Amino acid sequence: MSLPSRIILSGFMGTGKTTVGKLLARKLDYDFVDTDDLVVSLSQKPIARIFAEEGEEMFRRWESMAIDQALAREATVIAVGGGAVCFRDNLDKIRKNGQLVLLKAQIPTLLKRLSADDSRPLLQGEDKEGQIREILAKRASAYSRISLQIPTDNQSPEAVVEEILRVLPLESRALRVELGERSYPLYFQKNGIESLNLLLQRHCPAERVVLVTNSVVQRLHGAKIARHLKRQHDLKTIVLPDGESFKTLKTVASVYAKLVEFKVDRKTPLIALGGGVIGDLVGFAAASFLRGIPFVQIPTTLLAQVDSSIGGKTGVDLPQGKNLVGAFYQPRFVLIDEAFLKTLKRREFVCGLAEVIKYAAIFDAKLFRGLEEHMEAILKGKGAGLEPVIRRCCELKAWVVERDEKETLGLRAKLNFGHTLGHAIESLTRYKKYTHGEAIAMGMVYAARRSVERAGLPEADVERLKALIARAGLPTEMPAFPKAAYRKALMQDKKRVSSRLHFVYLNKIGKSVVIPTPLDEILV
Amino acid sequence: MSLPSRIILSGFMGTGKTTVGKLLARKLDYDFVDTDDLVVSLSQKPIARIFAEEGEEMFRRWESMAIDQALAREATVIAVGGGAVCFRDNLDKIRKNGQLVLLKAQIPTLLKRLSADDSRPLLQGEDKEGQIREILAKRASAYSRISLQIPTDNQSPEAVVEEILRVLPLESRALRVELGERSYPLYFQKNGIESLNLLLQRHCPAERVVLVTNSVVQRLHGAKIARHLKRQHDLKTIVLPDGESFKTLKTVASVYAKLVEFKVDRKTPLIALGGGVIGDLVGFAAASFLRGIPFVQIPTTLLAQVDSSIGGKTGVDLPQGKNLVGAFYQPRFVLIDEAFLKTLKRREFVCGLAEVIKYAAIFDAKLFRGLEEHMEAILKGKGAGLEPVIRRCCELKAWVVERDEKETLGLRAKLNFGHTLGHAIESLTRYKKYTHGEAIAMGMVYAARRSVERAGLPEADVERLKALIARAGLPTEMPAFPKAAYRKALMQDKKRVSSRLHFVYLNKIGKSVVIPTPLDEILV
Repeated sequence: MSLPSRIILSGFMGTGKTTVGKLLARKLDYDFVDTDDLVVSLSQKPIARIFAEEGEEMFRRWESMAIDQALAREATVIAVGGGAVCFRDNLDKIRKNGQLVLLKAQIPTLLKRLSADDSRPLLQGEDKEGQIREILAKRASAYSRISLQIPTDNQSPEAVVEEILRVLPLESRALRVELGERSYPLYFQKNGIESLNLLLQRHCPAERVVLVTNSVVQRLHGAKIARHLKRQHDLKTIVLPDGESFKTLKTVASVYAKLVEFKVDRKTPLIALGGGVIGDLVGFAAASFLRGIPFVQIPTTLLAQVDSSIGGKTGVDLPQGKNLVGAFYQPRFVLIDEAFLKTLKRREFVCGLAEVIKYAAIFDAKLFRGLEEHMEAILKGKGAGLEPVIRRCCELKAWVVERDEKETLGLRAKLNFGHTLGHAIESLTRYKKYTHGEAIAMGMVYAARRSVERAGLPEADVERLKALIARAGLPTEMPAFPKAAYRKALMQDKKRVSSRLHFVYLNKIGKSVVIPTPLDEILV
Repeated sequence: MSLPSRIILSGFMGTGKTTVGKLLARKLDYDFVDTDDLVVSLSQKPIARIFAEEGEEMFRRWESMAIDQALAREATVIAVGGGAVCFRDNLDKIRKNGQLVLLKAQIPTLLKRLSADDSRPLLQGEDKEGQIREILAKRASAYSRISLQIPTDNQSPEAVVEEILRVLPLESRALRVELGERSYPLYFQKNGIESLNLLLQRHCPAERVVLVTNSVVQRLHGAKIARHLKRQHDLKTIVLPDGESFKTLKTVASVYAKLVEFKVDRKTPLIALGGGVIGDLVGFAAASFLRGIPFVQIPTTLLAQVDSSIGGKTGVDLPQGKNLVGAFYQPRFVLIDEAFLKTLKRREFVCGLAEVIKYAAIFDAKLFRGLEEHMEAILKGKGAGLEPVIRRCCELKAWVVERDEKETLGLRAKLNFGHTLGHAIESLTRYKKYTHGEAIAMGMVYAARRSVERAGLPEADVERLKALIARAGLPTEMPAFPKAAYRKALMQDKKRVSSRLHFVYLNKIGKSVVIPTPLDEILV
């Protein structure tokens, strides 16, 4: 398991940065450096004197220089003052160059540890507790943006080091979706199931957990996951029938009934193990049961890994249309494991590739070229080595969701490239003939053709997109329903406002635009 | 219709504060004063010179003094610079002493209006648009906290004045629930239905609106409301059967079906007209249809007016228990009209009084004394003149919800005083024998008795609470079910975490505390 070359420990005074840092460095055979020591050697003054003579602002400048110096080293554990990480500049460069770990402690613990210490320039005078509270309150929002936090109360430094080493391999490769207090990490881990108890303990500790999956996934992976979860949890399992036709209010009602039977309380996490149907349905059940209980996504299809498991769109279908009922509800974490993809049918795997191609087409020309170069290898590998591609799609989706969580700005709407016609095709063929990926593949080619006139897409780019889609084994030409049939299907579109649709066009490969377009201009 | 004695106009430069302010003052026969003029006369310097010689900070001090002077006047329209209202101090004193109106304009409008003007100290140099954008971005969060905003683009100053006069009587008596971007106003207005079109236009403009009510309310008030709404909207109506037994997933599903049939899009508001059942159910339908559409509450019962219409708790019952499924979802606005209470059955009205007594008991000794003084008059009036009491309850609930929207801090849990046992009684009598208010009345007396030992409540306060409840015509003694039956019912409580319940105790009349308590210590 590879570790980052620089591990940066921060935390409030009294959380044990130096002690823990030295121990951790010894264990890893890394160097150890404390930026406070670097400040002293750079400025040739003790820190208390910098504060007294030059003020806090000057100290922060020395500290920033010290951080630069420390981050230039390799294989080093770096202790950094708890104030430094409140500055965006420092935080950005630390994140770019290493893995940040924030040590935490409750106020009584801090008071005990700091009681005998009068050397802290920020903590002078009688009311230490009041001062600590005040500084912590000021730093709360900055600290909340740090994903890897380790509690140190009632823990020996050795135990803290153990805990860091346990979570570091996972956390250092995690991607964080930044949504304020609803932020959450995506963990990328081959055979990541073996880390599930650890992650649950970190993000939604509870005795009981409820695993919800479908009969196919249960048969393939259920036993292994159950074995792991039972080691540390009271496990309840709900197995739903497989297939989109069960993504209904009735199925959700059956889940509610089980949750009551299992005496689920507000802290009990629901773990959604499966593809998009399971994720959407379990997400909605979690969003609405007791007005919201914790929810974890373990997507087992490529489609769910790159798309539906990120962004908090949950819901079910009505007889009148797909996803007409639901909620925006974010999971506590998502665990993405390419090993699941091995067990997919080829057609299911290819279905996910359609979304991968979509991300590349609308946002990332480099990713598009990569797909053009390696499509045959990707098809052959069926997931093996695909993690960087999956990760890039997740990054793009997270970037979009962070900026437009509820699809109010038009940015998130770009993700619907190919989907307007795709949904119409799915609806017209009653979701039987084509997979979602196949339908949007045809929708993308159609939208690309419309983009030539409306958004200046070069004809050559239409051909590139069409060729890549065809090489993935996906269809490119829409079935020949009458125009009136397509029109009727488009009228059901959730994004319809009056008679206009927010239609996504390509300007070129890697760049897209949303233009509200009358139905009649879409169906020419 | 009484108007506030001080109307304060603010807004970015170029929104027309001075022109509109002078017109408005003339119309109302008020004085007009511009705080910029007061600054000049206080400082004996033109404003541009203050900026040049003393800097912006000094200007802000002069401005704050000028605001104090202006707010000391009566019957005055006061124009205040758009920067001033970004400071909490200024905003607080303006709100305390008058009604603030923010004039708005789009950037192109501002550019046109400011193009010939070189006297603005904050707007010097070439790139005016860039500077405007920058200042607006800085002020965005402060401006978003101002509830009464009037757009001025393509409007004559006369039209802006008309608009202000139309909304001022409503807005000046509104109470705002502050929840960031989910903030919303509660309007208190006798026969407020006549203002509904105006409020819809301000808060959720759409051609089509959907009114959802039950058969009883429809018979009493439906025709009048429909007549009003149809004047400016394409009105669709859903009439549900009356009663808690219809607060089910099945009923929600029937609402979804209607919404599809009505071609509801993401901007179509649902108007919930009725008591708690309608509000909860329609709120959940709005929260979940298309993952959230606008939602308006018009509570017609006292219980709904003081309790369920504020705070965003929506949901339905399951066969296994009440409110087990739902969402936290805030309305766009709430319209509270004491006139509805006239048509309530006495028992329904008294049911709401139980919640009023609850607010007084847990938070407000003065309100409690007021109820002790006027209980017989309140019962006789059946709503007439009750607005100040309803308003006070709404203030208390809003205060709680602002601090603990999702009931994570224990503060919102205080609102469950009397409800733990109350819910158990309702469940044991299958929601048939007692109204919600009657059940919690008994629960409150029980909780008060338990508070003597656990929270130091004087015996005399138990007696005061019991006497007030009895005078309201509510029961005080719980039905004699076996302890095991109560125990089983309590195990279903949503607030249960393991075997402890977050039980609400009184310290004294007007002061309460939540203590996690084992079941066996609640049922002695």
